[in-house]
Amino acid sequence: MRDVAIVGVGCTKFGEMWHKSFRDLFIEAGVMALDDAEISGVQVEALYGGNMSSGIFVEQEHVGALISDYSGLSTSNIPSTRVEAACASGGLALRSGIIAVASGYHDIVVSAGIEKMTDVGAEKAIDALASAADREWEAAVGATFPGLYAMMARAHMHEFGTTREQLAQVAVKNHYHGSMNPRAQFRNSVTIDTVISSPLVADPLRLYDCSPITDGAAAAVLVPADRAREFTDTPIYIKAATQASDTISLHDRRSITGIDATVVAADRAFKIAGLQRADIDVAEVHDCFTIAEIMAVEDLGFFEKGTGGPATLDGETALGGRIPINTSGGLKACGHPVGATGIKQAVEIVEQLRGEAQKRQVHGAEIGLTHNVGGSGGTVVVHILSR
Amino acid sequence: MRDVAIVGVGCTKFGEMWHKSFRDLFIEAGVMALDDAEISGVQVEALYGGNMSSGIFVEQEHVGALISDYSGLSTSNIPSTRVEAACASGGLALRSGIIAVASGYHDIVVSAGIEKMTDVGAEKAIDALASAADREWEAAVGATFPGLYAMMARAHMHEFGTTREQLAQVAVKNHYHGSMNPRAQFRNSVTIDTVISSPLVADPLRLYDCSPITDGAAAAVLVPADRAREFTDTPIYIKAATQASDTISLHDRRSITGIDATVVAADRAFKIAGLQRADIDVAEVHDCFTIAEIMAVEDLGFFEKGTGGPATLDGETALGGRIPINTSGGLKACGHPVGATGIKQAVEIVEQLRGEAQKRQVHGAEIGLTHNVGGSGGTVVVHILSR
Repeated sequence: MRDVAIVGVGCTKFGEMWHKSFRDLFIEAGVMALDDAEISGVQVEALYGGNMSSGIFVEQEHVGALISDYSGLSTSNIPSTRVEAACASGGLALRSGIIAVASGYHDIVVSAGIEKMTDVGAEKAIDALASAADREWEAAVGATFPGLYAMMARAHMHEFGTTREQLAQVAVKNHYHGSMNPRAQFRNSVTIDTVISSPLVADPLRLYDCSPITDGAAAAVLVPADRAREFTDTPIYIKAATQASDTISLHDRRSITGIDATVVAADRAFKIAGLQRADIDVAEVHDCFTIAEIMAVEDLGFFEKGTGGPATLDGETALGGRIPINTSGGLKACGHPVGATGIKQAVEIVEQLRGEAQKRQVHGAEIGLTHNVGGSGGTVVVHILSR
Repeated sequence: MRDVAIVGVGCTKFGEMWHKSFRDLFIEAGVMALDDAEISGVQVEALYGGNMSSGIFVEQEHVGALISDYSGLSTSNIPSTRVEAACASGGLALRSGIIAVASGYHDIVVSAGIEKMTDVGAEKAIDALASAADREWEAAVGATFPGLYAMMARAHMHEFGTTREQLAQVAVKNHYHGSMNPRAQFRNSVTIDTVISSPLVADPLRLYDCSPITDGAAAAVLVPADRAREFTDTPIYIKAATQASDTISLHDRRSITGIDATVVAADRAFKIAGLQRADIDVAEVHDCFTIAEIMAVEDLGFFEKGTGGPATLDGETALGGRIPINTSGGLKACGHPVGATGIKQAVEIVEQLRGEAQKRQVHGAEIGLTHNVGGSGGTVVVHILSR
């Protein structure tokens, strides 16, 4: 098994991109990543595209062929594969590309993520997102994702005493981080009061507890580690790429105050990488709702179970804190184009480890982690990256 | 890179399975494959599921987590990945599983394919299938797949003199093969007259030139070749697993009398396997329409370009002929649950190479090939398998 490195990254602006189509967004991110790696498209040997629900959002399946075609790569007839695991599709595209390079099947691979969500109205968008839950046992009886995560939040508050203010602080912190990220969908700062006085979505979750509907794309260029310096002076190495599944529906879980697939994927990743939690300098975690970030920092092992809320309120997860979480602004403020998120997380960590994150820079960051969740935790993908 | 073998296969009955759900079908095929490999579910280390459009057909994305969950595998939290390339999704799931084993990431992998198409009406099914074409430049202006393949048929007839009877003979042969396959959706024999007097769908293609709407699932168990004999006395070895892309839309192609991605994927496969066309004893090719099989046997190199029609009429591709094609009945008669087809093709070839194909057996078959097409040729996956 060969080691793998990231030698180029690209990411579009996230937001309501009504002037750009699905294919436009992918091309923009892909070209940025190739430019960053200083390679040309003809050198690319395979594409992996993470996308959740282009069939519903833009009535287009077969997007592997589409992105290869519109990248001008149809002339080299490279393999192009779409992978899907709801909101973890991007992380899965990264891991699939890593496996393809590790296997020896391909040398230069682009892993990308993309979602164009604003071409449909809210009702259809909610339908599309609900298809990440169990259609027969959750979505069909009216459970949407805010509802599912609201149940997790209530249980977490009940079991550990997590407070409304602690949840709100996740949004406050991530909006603050996002205010320094030119790519972020939301660059406005908010206060705890903004969050807790925003409209109720699913009790206890309010508007500012929820990540938005977003268009965007991101891409990364992968090569065998021993060839990385041909392309860049600052390769970022993959130390672990792990993935775990759990029941797709929430009611079948052992507990709903955490996500077991996160615990398992993280344990596997740290074991493979030979690293400890304390070695991680910066992490992008899946904060689709504020409660999700609190559960993530606990389940990843950065904080004891039940203490994610207080740690957040104490600033331990903010820039300058013990372990800065979601310096990009996270899904909450940077935005959440579902299929793109997992790759955007890797782009942020790569920029941090290269020392290119500007105002968001975690000084001296050497090792970072990404954590991407599908649905309510049916799929989790974790990557550990290092300078 | 490790060599890979198939040690177990399973496939449901294909047809209108109104009494079985998406998840029921997957479980049925998966359990058959595990039984065939004589392993238990807890030994499985990763799942790859090929599926085209569950989002539209059954309003369910995130089917990787779903199939892992309903297989009872959520307790082992194994990675489960959905891959999609329209009607080539099954072939892609097979290739993705092979790469995962070859890489050393996983040892025992199940690659499956599934599609549940009959839960929606014809209009929605046509919409779902059209999403495999270019939505903006083909589907949006009314081009459906019968229409696209009809244009290819007309061009092929014009350029090479392919006749109406030659097209019809593909259906006659595949219905004959399907009549001997207990899994086939259609087991009735038809004549050339049945085909050419059936209702017109898209000139020159008639009802019997088209593959049907089908429910079904298939699965295969993959292991490192050097461990294969732990599981079976009759391992089938992967000699090549290749994939090629082309433009997603037909009008951008160099030619529409063939599929370039087939030519490229086949060339790569024969080179990797170190084999000649004449070495292939039996092949399953992508006959979504009768013209597709004629183009396939030419583009794969079994017959000179333009001679696929006469060769078919002469019986060279029938059981007992020079190279038996689609002994399963093909997409035409066995049925075409789009995401499952690529795996079903591998199941048929495995059974042929094991000598277990009963009345359909190609005597002494040692090497076989599968050819799976997405859309009108935007994706092609080719596998070469040997005893």
